[in-house]
Amino acid sequence: MFHTRQGSRSLVGMTRPDKRAADELRPVKFTRSWTDHPEGSVLVEFGRTRVLCTATVTPGVPRWRRGSGEGWVTAEYSMLPRSTHSRSDRESIRGKIGGRTHEISRLIGRSLRACIDFKALGENTITLDCDVLQADGGTRTAAITGAYVALHDAVDWLKEQKIARKPDKILTTSVAAISVGVVNGVPVLDLPYEEDVAASVDMNVVCTGEGDFVEVQGTGEEAVFNRAELDSLLDLALKGCKELAGLQARTLLSP
Amino acid sequence: MFHTRQGSRSLVGMTRPDKRAADELRPVKFTRSWTDHPEGSVLVEFGRTRVLCTATVTPGVPRWRRGSGEGWVTAEYSMLPRSTHSRSDRESIRGKIGGRTHEISRLIGRSLRACIDFKALGENTITLDCDVLQADGGTRTAAITGAYVALHDAVDWLKEQKIARKPDKILTTSVAAISVGVVNGVPVLDLPYEEDVAASVDMNVVCTGEGDFVEVQGTGEEAVFNRAELDSLLDLALKGCKELAGLQARTLLSP
Amino acid sequence: MFHTRQGSRSLVGMTRPDKRAADELRPVKFTRSWTDHPEGSVLVEFGRTRVLCTATVTPGVPRWRRGSGEGWVTAEYSMLPRSTHSRSDRESIRGKIGGRTHEISRLIGRSLRACIDFKALGENTITLDCDVLQADGGTRTAAITGAYVALHDAVDWLKEQKIARKPDKILTTSVAAISVGVVNGVPVLDLPYEEDVAASVDMNVVCTGEGDFVEVQGTGEEAVFNRAELDSLLDLALKGCKELAGLQARTLLSP
Amino acid sequence: MFHTRQGSRSLVGMTRPDKRAADELRPVKFTRSWTDHPEGSVLVEFGRTRVLCTATVTPGVPRWRRGSGEGWVTAEYSMLPRSTHSRSDRESIRGKIGGRTHEISRLIGRSLRACIDFKALGENTITLDCDVLQADGGTRTAAITGAYVALHDAVDWLKEQKIARKPDKILTTSVAAISVGVVNGVPVLDLPYEEDVAASVDMNVVCTGEGDFVEVQGTGEEAVFNRAELDSLLDLALKGCKELAGLQARTLLSP
Amino acid sequence: MFHTRQGSRSLVGMTRPDKRAADELRPVKFTRSWTDHPEGSVLVEFGRTRVLCTATVTPGVPRWRRGSGEGWVTAEYSMLPRSTHSRSDRESIRGKIGGRTHEISRLIGRSLRACIDFKALGENTITLDCDVLQADGGTRTAAITGAYVALHDAVDWLKEQKIARKPDKILTTSVAAISVGVVNGVPVLDLPYEEDVAASVDMNVVCTGEGDFVEVQGTGEEAVFNRAELDSLLDLALKGCKELAGLQARTLLSP
Amino acid sequence: MFHTRQGSRSLVGMTRPDKRAADELRPVKFTRSWTDHPEGSVLVEFGRTRVLCTATVTPGVPRWRRGSGEGWVTAEYSMLPRSTHSRSDRESIRGKIGGRTHEISRLIGRSLRACIDFKALGENTITLDCDVLQADGGTRTAAITGAYVALHDAVDWLKEQKIARKPDKILTTSVAAISVGVVNGVPVLDLPYEEDVAASVDMNVVCTGEGDFVEVQGTGEEAVFNRAELDSLLDLALKGCKELAGLQARTLLSP
Repeated sequence: MFHTRQGSRSLVGMTRPDKRAADELRPVKFTRSWTDHPEGSVLVEFGRTRVLCTATVTPGVPRWRRGSGEGWVTAEYSMLPRSTHSRSDRESIRGKIGGRTHEISRLIGRSLRACIDFKALGENTITLDCDVLQADGGTRTAAITGAYVALHDAVDWLKEQKIARKPDKILTTSVAAISVGVVNGVPVLDLPYEEDVAASVDMNVVCTGEGDFVEVQGTGEEAVFNRAELDSLLDLALKGCKELAGLQARTLLSP
Repeated sequence: MFHTRQGSRSLVGMTRPDKRAADELRPVKFTRSWTDHPEGSVLVEFGRTRVLCTATVTPGVPRWRRGSGEGWVTAEYSMLPRSTHSRSDRESIRGKIGGRTHEISRLIGRSLRACIDFKALGENTITLDCDVLQADGGTRTAAITGAYVALHDAVDWLKEQKIARKPDKILTTSVAAISVGVVNGVPVLDLPYEEDVAASVDMNVVCTGEGDFVEVQGTGEEAVFNRAELDSLLDLALKGCKELAGLQARTLLSP
Repeated sequence: MFHTRQGSRSLVGMTRPDKRAADELRPVKFTRSWTDHPEGSVLVEFGRTRVLCTATVTPGVPRWRRGSGEGWVTAEYSMLPRSTHSRSDRESIRGKIGGRTHEISRLIGRSLRACIDFKALGENTITLDCDVLQADGGTRTAAITGAYVALHDAVDWLKEQKIARKPDKILTTSVAAISVGVVNGVPVLDLPYEEDVAASVDMNVVCTGEGDFVEVQGTGEEAVFNRAELDSLLDLALKGCKELAGLQARTLLSP
Repeated sequence: MFHTRQGSRSLVGMTRPDKRAADELRPVKFTRSWTDHPEGSVLVEFGRTRVLCTATVTPGVPRWRRGSGEGWVTAEYSMLPRSTHSRSDRESIRGKIGGRTHEISRLIGRSLRACIDFKALGENTITLDCDVLQADGGTRTAAITGAYVALHDAVDWLKEQKIARKPDKILTTSVAAISVGVVNGVPVLDLPYEEDVAASVDMNVVCTGEGDFVEVQGTGEEAVFNRAELDSLLDLALKGCKELAGLQARTLLSP
Repeated sequence: MFHTRQGSRSLVGMTRPDKRAADELRPVKFTRSWTDHPEGSVLVEFGRTRVLCTATVTPGVPRWRRGSGEGWVTAEYSMLPRSTHSRSDRESIRGKIGGRTHEISRLIGRSLRACIDFKALGENTITLDCDVLQADGGTRTAAITGAYVALHDAVDWLKEQKIARKPDKILTTSVAAISVGVVNGVPVLDLPYEEDVAASVDMNVVCTGEGDFVEVQGTGEEAVFNRAELDSLLDLALKGCKELAGLQARTLLSP
Repeated sequence: MFHTRQGSRSLVGMTRPDKRAADELRPVKFTRSWTDHPEGSVLVEFGRTRVLCTATVTPGVPRWRRGSGEGWVTAEYSMLPRSTHSRSDRESIRGKIGGRTHEISRLIGRSLRACIDFKALGENTITLDCDVLQADGGTRTAAITGAYVALHDAVDWLKEQKIARKPDKILTTSVAAISVGVVNGVPVLDLPYEEDVAASVDMNVVCTGEGDFVEVQGTGEEAVFNRAELDSLLDLALKGCKELAGLQARTLLSP
């Protein structure tokens, strides 16, 4: 169950670049079946951040998991070279994956594995590809939130195809993620790029639909934060994830 | 000037999977400013094939061209892993660029350089990124055709910014490309994937707005073709490129 | 200031493999000047986990920081192939850095940058190499805790050499890190490998000597955790970091 | 059958650096069994261009073709670092294959596959290595033309060894290739490096012994060409390939 | 049997930086079981040179040796980035192994294979990892000498585990190595870094416990050496290896 | 001066596969200016072993040598994929240089640097490319011996171009190399592949024209050798190098 320890803090007098309240999400939009080939394909938008999340089902599992009777979920994150303000080189051309890309891919994979019953999935693999088409802050949290919807569609496909062991039991909960941070001393929810670079503390929180934590990553690069700030940020994040879980559920109700 | 040596050949009795005539293009659509950051950003669609073409302007040129007073145009092509029917591995993760990717990136770069006056551009570089979001045949020709529109928008941006030497002289013509092939013995225009795999001859043709050739690449892998077939294919391609040039011009008339 | 919200929780009835109390650190040992060449060289031991942390000072900063008047601190983490129970391949031979290595190197770098005044450092770079000689859980937190001592010695070297701008102001605080987790439903401090693999929640916490947070990373792979569990883990971690800060201070008092 | 649509164009007044007529090949020479180990080994010379073409037979086919009952032919092209006027770095040392190398290797493979009956070959692979020992223009066309002779020798070896399914049916035709281009407004055949860099249009044509096209690649980098020029170039190329096919046949008559 | 052709040469008047006689080893120390996980783990010290040598036993052999009934021994050498006076980049980050590392890894592997009966070992592989923790000249010879002790311990482990075919016959002799060189015209034994950079001739010699040669590598980079100098160096090396063989034997006598 | 300690040993009763005496070289042949572009280009043949050695002169030196006033000589060795009995993969395609290639490239570079006065060369670099066209044992020694002739031609080119500081003083001696080994208990000179694989000891020796040693590398993989055998091998090698030095001198006398 979602519960926040304290009421929404007074935000009188603060102005965010896009006039949002401190605890307000950007407009969030999911477009399902955005492309035709994948088993799940969702374009997710958090304001101007736009990520294409696809879910691919393949029979079999990685070598180290063979014979276990259990499936696997993995993820790959990438940014198009000009998804950002200035162009960045392609990792395919540099010949290696950068640390940030590695880190985010691993985070997405871990997060989505939290809602899967691998025995019910059987020895099948679901690969989540999250490609950032346009970046304006919060790309990893948008990716996780969109990937859940794509994953859900792929699981529906498994049900139709009657491929998995117990298709109805594969998904055990939903997963959503949001960024929070301290900007000019005020904790805010869902930071666009402009706020992100100005934040003294930056935190990404992944929650289940029940409001439990899957992952909490708070960083005060060249800064620090105390317990009270941490608590405020967690409150904001829980509120944001709760709203996202509602939006995911509403999206998945339509056929 | 566009001129084809023979009238459109009789196509009575042939049926294409999408009911098109043999010399008919798929629905073509350009969405300009599809993303916000690049100097030119075009989503181009040839039927279900969907490519995001962005043009990035950077001051300076590669080392080997410095001091020449001339600019440079280069291109990079890539496919999202699940743009295709079955998922392909990312080249960034394999750690190397495949031969096909290399080949197409080079083709796009050469093709677009054919419409540029490098002295007028001055020592600036325009990078064209063509990322295939969904593939259904003809991705390289859609990429070239869309990249021209993105390039045009980037040149307009240069004019506004008054950056280049003679911005009004940078573009000397337009460039478009189309695929043609022989399927079941019949030459056809603009092949979707289903026809592409069945084609005995496969040709990509790049033309200027005046109907001159920039590039002609015909391949009969595990098959061959004679002069008459080559001529029919060239006729079809010239017709297709002429129509694409018209569509590009109409698109660029809107603000 | 260090403060924990609640008293140490009752641990009656629980047994850890090495008989420690749930809130007890393993024996921690710092050996300074363990090798001769580096400006700072510390062998840090958390129980059987053994990490060699060296600090190298080089004049100049990375390209993107040149001319800023500010210095830089970066870190690289690696494990010897047989530091673990079974041998793992060398990343130099595989030709690429794995995601986990990338992630930990970045974490160490960010953590140590939290205690540095870059203007006081001037345009010098300090590289922290953390090589795991023997692994038994908690290698990243041992690395951060040991790297701080090596960094301190390197700053002392800078003072002697009178190289930096304001050598006395380079260090603004101390930094230490500890792992916490939930094992068999009980939150415990400083997990060895045996507990680590059994933990349902795994958290790494980096704190300053004043008890502020630098980094909080909690993960419930294939599991989740609630707010109360998170709070218990943070309490334990703050206690552990406070003790480590004391041990670091004591170590640095000796010449 | 070879047929060209128009007579040889008037070349009065034009002078090529080596005094050849516009439609004249450079001296072409094949030295079979130039090295001892390969199943086919041919040193081919087009003027000063010198390429060592070897054919290696190995039992089995690539994974994706196993169980098909069909064989495979593949090619790798490379230039020695000082085969060119100034030295170029080795791709082995740069750690990656360049785009041009990729492109040419693929062209050679496709071209030679056009003369093979894969069912007759059975599940065997023939690898064609084309290493440029000295480059003076036309290396890829010399490579294809020489590789055919090496391939023929390897097929003879298969016959002697009685390895393939139907050794007498493996080769269905012969394959040769030549470059053509427009230099100073005049279409010319078989361009050496000096003409190649001066050409406004550059075309490589691969033909079978019957005069059918296998591959047509025409490029007008930073230039364009019209249908009449294309036709003249194709005429020249067909004439050149016909002569090369004759030379190949004559070479292969000797034991 | 060890035999040197001439008596120890007069060293009157020469001074080495650490006051040793020309034919005197640095203090040599072996610490067995320095880490807990490996089947053999030895910290070897030659003066300030410190190398961690571990031996890992794995069932099975490389593909090319399968079914032979014979085992394999291989080695990997690496230096920690700050084992040297100034820091060197990690090969894992450069993405490739340098020539020197390759050369030394191969030398260690060949040297240790000289004391193994592969039939007695059966199809098992022993991997020797030699990681230089501190470098002061002679790292490759210290690595070989220490790796023998680690290998011996791993063979003892095989005996206890009763894994190999004929565990008692695996080791056929012992192996040790030493560096010799000509410094200021005088042949000296076991050169530290300071002498190494000043040497006109540099030689590494690997011997068995019986005084036979396994490997002789003499180099006169930008210098040359005559037969008499070579003989003097070989005499010194044989003397040094004999002493090392004695130290190894003494070390292995303790449990 | 060349001097061998003992007379040629009795070879009565031994038969080498090509009927040579134990102390006899294979037929050695140098073809200068084998290709046109390089400053020095020599095809060297030791029996069936055939190596193309080219010398490339470039102004400037590597970064670490700039400003020293001294030049540099470096070498790269490679084998064509089918220079050997069975085909080996290209290192460019594997994306990395193998250990053996690294080792031999470094050996060739060191060996040739022994005959250069770097001050006389001035800040110019000579790159020696040694590409094995056909391998039949002794490729590295043929490469060194041929590279010296190519280097000499490049130095003559420098003299003509009047580029170096003191062109007449660049070469201080000549360099040649030969392999020796113990086959069936008998020391033999210049081993072809067939003997190489059967040899219990394998040694490569590099000498100057005066008979001094530049490099001695003796290996008894899975075997050992004693002092007497070493002496016999050195005698044979000195004899072989002396003859090669004579052949080099004779070759260089012709224009």
